[in-house]
Amino acid sequence: MKFAVIGGDMRIARLCSLLVSDGHDVCSFALDKGECSRDIYCAGSPEEAAWGADCVVLPLPVMGQRGFLNSPLSAGEYEIKEILETIEPGTLVCGGILEPETLALGEQLGLRMVDYFKREELAVFNAVATAEGAIGIIMQETPVTIWGSRILVIGYGRLGKMLSSRLHALGAKVSVSARNPGDMAWITAGGCSALDTRALEGHLSDFDVVVNTVPALVLTEERLMELRDDALCLDLASKPGGMDFAAASRLGVRAIWALSLPGEVAPESAGAIIRDTIYNILEEQEEP
Amino acid sequence: MKFAVIGGDMRIARLCSLLVSDGHDVCSFALDKGECSRDIYCAGSPEEAAWGADCVVLPLPVMGQRGFLNSPLSAGEYEIKEILETIEPGTLVCGGILEPETLALGEQLGLRMVDYFKREELAVFNAVATAEGAIGIIMQETPVTIWGSRILVIGYGRLGKMLSSRLHALGAKVSVSARNPGDMAWITAGGCSALDTRALEGHLSDFDVVVNTVPALVLTEERLMELRDDALCLDLASKPGGMDFAAASRLGVRAIWALSLPGEVAPESAGAIIRDTIYNILEEQEEP
Amino acid sequence: MKFAVIGGDMRIARLCSLLVSDGHDVCSFALDKGECSRDIYCAGSPEEAAWGADCVVLPLPVMGQRGFLNSPLSAGEYEIKEILETIEPGTLVCGGILEPETLALGEQLGLRMVDYFKREELAVFNAVATAEGAIGIIMQETPVTIWGSRILVIGYGRLGKMLSSRLHALGAKVSVSARNPGDMAWITAGGCSALDTRALEGHLSDFDVVVNTVPALVLTEERLMELRDDALCLDLASKPGGMDFAAASRLGVRAIWALSLPGEVAPESAGAIIRDTIYNILEEQEEP
Amino acid sequence: MKFAVIGGDMRIARLCSLLVSDGHDVCSFALDKGECSRDIYCAGSPEEAAWGADCVVLPLPVMGQRGFLNSPLSAGEYEIKEILETIEPGTLVCGGILEPETLALGEQLGLRMVDYFKREELAVFNAVATAEGAIGIIMQETPVTIWGSRILVIGYGRLGKMLSSRLHALGAKVSVSARNPGDMAWITAGGCSALDTRALEGHLSDFDVVVNTVPALVLTEERLMELRDDALCLDLASKPGGMDFAAASRLGVRAIWALSLPGEVAPESAGAIIRDTIYNILEEQEEP
Repeated sequence: MKFAVIGGDMRIARLCSLLVSDGHDVCSFALDKGECSRDIYCAGSPEEAAWGADCVVLPLPVMGQRGFLNSPLSAGEYEIKEILETIEPGTLVCGGILEPETLALGEQLGLRMVDYFKREELAVFNAVATAEGAIGIIMQETPVTIWGSRILVIGYGRLGKMLSSRLHALGAKVSVSARNPGDMAWITAGGCSALDTRALEGHLSDFDVVVNTVPALVLTEERLMELRDDALCLDLASKPGGMDFAAASRLGVRAIWALSLPGEVAPESAGAIIRDTIYNILEEQEEP
Repeated sequence: MKFAVIGGDMRIARLCSLLVSDGHDVCSFALDKGECSRDIYCAGSPEEAAWGADCVVLPLPVMGQRGFLNSPLSAGEYEIKEILETIEPGTLVCGGILEPETLALGEQLGLRMVDYFKREELAVFNAVATAEGAIGIIMQETPVTIWGSRILVIGYGRLGKMLSSRLHALGAKVSVSARNPGDMAWITAGGCSALDTRALEGHLSDFDVVVNTVPALVLTEERLMELRDDALCLDLASKPGGMDFAAASRLGVRAIWALSLPGEVAPESAGAIIRDTIYNILEEQEEP
Repeated sequence: MKFAVIGGDMRIARLCSLLVSDGHDVCSFALDKGECSRDIYCAGSPEEAAWGADCVVLPLPVMGQRGFLNSPLSAGEYEIKEILETIEPGTLVCGGILEPETLALGEQLGLRMVDYFKREELAVFNAVATAEGAIGIIMQETPVTIWGSRILVIGYGRLGKMLSSRLHALGAKVSVSARNPGDMAWITAGGCSALDTRALEGHLSDFDVVVNTVPALVLTEERLMELRDDALCLDLASKPGGMDFAAASRLGVRAIWALSLPGEVAPESAGAIIRDTIYNILEEQEEP
Repeated sequence: MKFAVIGGDMRIARLCSLLVSDGHDVCSFALDKGECSRDIYCAGSPEEAAWGADCVVLPLPVMGQRGFLNSPLSAGEYEIKEILETIEPGTLVCGGILEPETLALGEQLGLRMVDYFKREELAVFNAVATAEGAIGIIMQETPVTIWGSRILVIGYGRLGKMLSSRLHALGAKVSVSARNPGDMAWITAGGCSALDTRALEGHLSDFDVVVNTVPALVLTEERLMELRDDALCLDLASKPGGMDFAAASRLGVRAIWALSLPGEVAPESAGAIIRDTIYNILEEQEEP
């Protein structure tokens, strides 16, 4: 198959190499500083890259901070619209996090748009990598072993599950907070203690480390005040985060807001999982 | 509070004792052979039991095999309709598995009907207890240790999750089959191998034990033929089961269909979890 | 190679089949009721079996209850001395549990006697199989799930390690008692609570299940009196056991003394591990 | 009780605070830059510190790099001999790693010398903390997740056990090498693959990460040549280490030699475990 890979960071550069080693043709654009092996053709324009491609891969996220294509390994800036317009109608376009307007535009142009970030297999990997990154941070930032530490994980979604089970396996005394009795049953079935996210008051001083995974303001000033002086407070929730950072700063709480851990701690694994996810998408597209 | 407990097996008898030790008044009916402690009042009629009750508890399942109230500890047979009619309108009635007609009738009578079997916390416990029961059966029925055995778990619902993680922890080489890439990602994240339930052909001879948890015919004659001669085939799926038992018998497959393991292997824990579930229901009912 | 296998139970019968499938010649004696495949030659006398053998395998244990060769699958009774005398001097003889007199006799006859029961790899397997057997018993004999049960394991030898880690993985609240701070450190490092075996008094009423693995009288009458009425007390220690059974009976304690679990729950795996152990012995004998 | 604490790093400073919060009198010397709380008396001389002490605590290790007392938090340099001479005969002196000459001198002076570094409970903690530190390094230094990585741990002592079980729990594919069949049985019982440390040749290219825990030259030039280009090679063995570092450098192997991880990653936990160990020593000293 022929893949066009346009834009992206080290994860996407890695994806190119992996596609090549699987025997595919890869034509890249706006990935200049990535380790361009001899087997990857670096096109001079998006048209050239996309020409004849069975599948066009856009980065994760597709859109960079300033509204252009996310292309940190390239010196140029590219409009997403211009990229999409170069792709032949009917082509499969896989991008990570497709903003509504990008999606609408692509469909208007007759492209088959698929958001690979919405795929469960990618989300599971991201949770694993984020959990590992969080464990690395906790190891570095606390003067105690994880073994024996009292750690609260707020939220029991994918990340809460992955993180709490790993911390438990490393010998921490783990509590997890959730909101419904079903989740609490799963939490205790997994060997952790269950708390109610809506009723953390009176419990927060029990912990050496508090990790938030919920994308809502759960660590309010009132709650931060309850923390022990030497507690570490780690927020893994995507924007706008789950902690009142201004209050944390006022109170002298040791607060860390860690984002995008998968690309940071495991770019190579991340490239591999994007590849697997794209293969799964291709397989499902082929089914009648 | 005052509870009326009407019908049920040893789990429900145990529930009565637990409610009493929590300080509640309990009035039972049709539980005669249960260990009736002095503190549980055994009523002479359903009316007497239900009179003034804040909550009426019906058994799990509510309906027995012949269409009457499920009351294996009582000599009598009781129409569910007659029981419901004795309960004062507005009363909370908690039953395990409410058939549509029972539900409709109760609501027509003005009762607040809640099916506690639909609650996630009870389902999680049932999965834990069923997983333990299945492990006990595998231990008994195979001449090998679970450690080192090659075991296939078909399905990755609650039970598949609980069972596969436990078998993995006991040192088995566990494969789990599922149908979508997301589940497969969770399976490998949990340390097991993932297979596709729709494409088990060619893999089945790899296993010492095959456990089905999917309530659909997955173990067809064709698949059963692939099994090794000494393989154990355990079906945990509720009726109609997931195995072609006639074919299994013809082929000489060592097949076991195990149902209702929670009540069998852990009646006391089951009583406790029914109590917890009912408390959760009561708490949610009280919320405005 | 040519193996002579003389006496033994189903584990040894299984060993014969495994040796044959590995391409060895096997000549058996006193294993009549074992599943004698066509490829195993059943000799008419020990002389015939031992004739020309590179290695003679005796059962586990070598000696049966009445002082004769342990040969439950044979109708006859055989003196161990007579067996040994038929073996050519210089031959390697592997037996499981060699009594001092058997060992002395063999060496006097010029045989190279090795006790395979003393090998760590066999002991580790035995601990795994015994731990599984114990878990099966606990599942059957208690009306609660292992998950959530409070279980005390007395002793932190091989079996204590294997059993406590498995119970912990199944979600029990596990305490392990030992005698020195080093073991206690390992116990807590493994996620269990540590107690002092010499100071169990005052703690015993905390447990639903007490499992002894120490071959010394640790469960005295005084201690048994502390147990809860419904507690299960399981003794896995070899003779003379670790419980005052007379007192347990007087006190109405639910006591079980389980011996020889590996042969019972996993004869096939046990045969395989005896084979592996014998191969390891052969390899080490060959080294200069 | 009265403790004199002389010399040491942040772990020992932390020990002082813990002893004080347990209600003991603590008099320190040569710990000036440690967080000297109001309740710790900082003596002006070793004599003053040791005067009337029930137990004198020396650092871990007792001897610093240049042969003097290990006192990184003090500006001064102190002869160990001078320190010991100020202590009253008969006093219990606990030090971490007592060189033969230090031990001999102390005993000559009539002191009751105990090496707390030789205690199993401290060694177990050190293994836990070192394992965590190693995991942190692997997370940082590899572009892949630990989950799914192929990792070889050389050696199955305390550290090998702790590290391999944790890596296994985090989802790595772990092989452990050892030298005898008994250890190999434990390794496979723990869910890892076993290799022979004497026969690693031909296997080394299978791994993303190789961690050595054996204090002997196991990673020779020949073996290092087998490693994959992007493999990480981590040596945790104490001096002289287990890797041919010159060869590693020549070959361009990504090699890291990490020493003293416990004090680095978990000074506070290390202080706590030294305290617990000293309490255990005191208790045993008191026994008749």
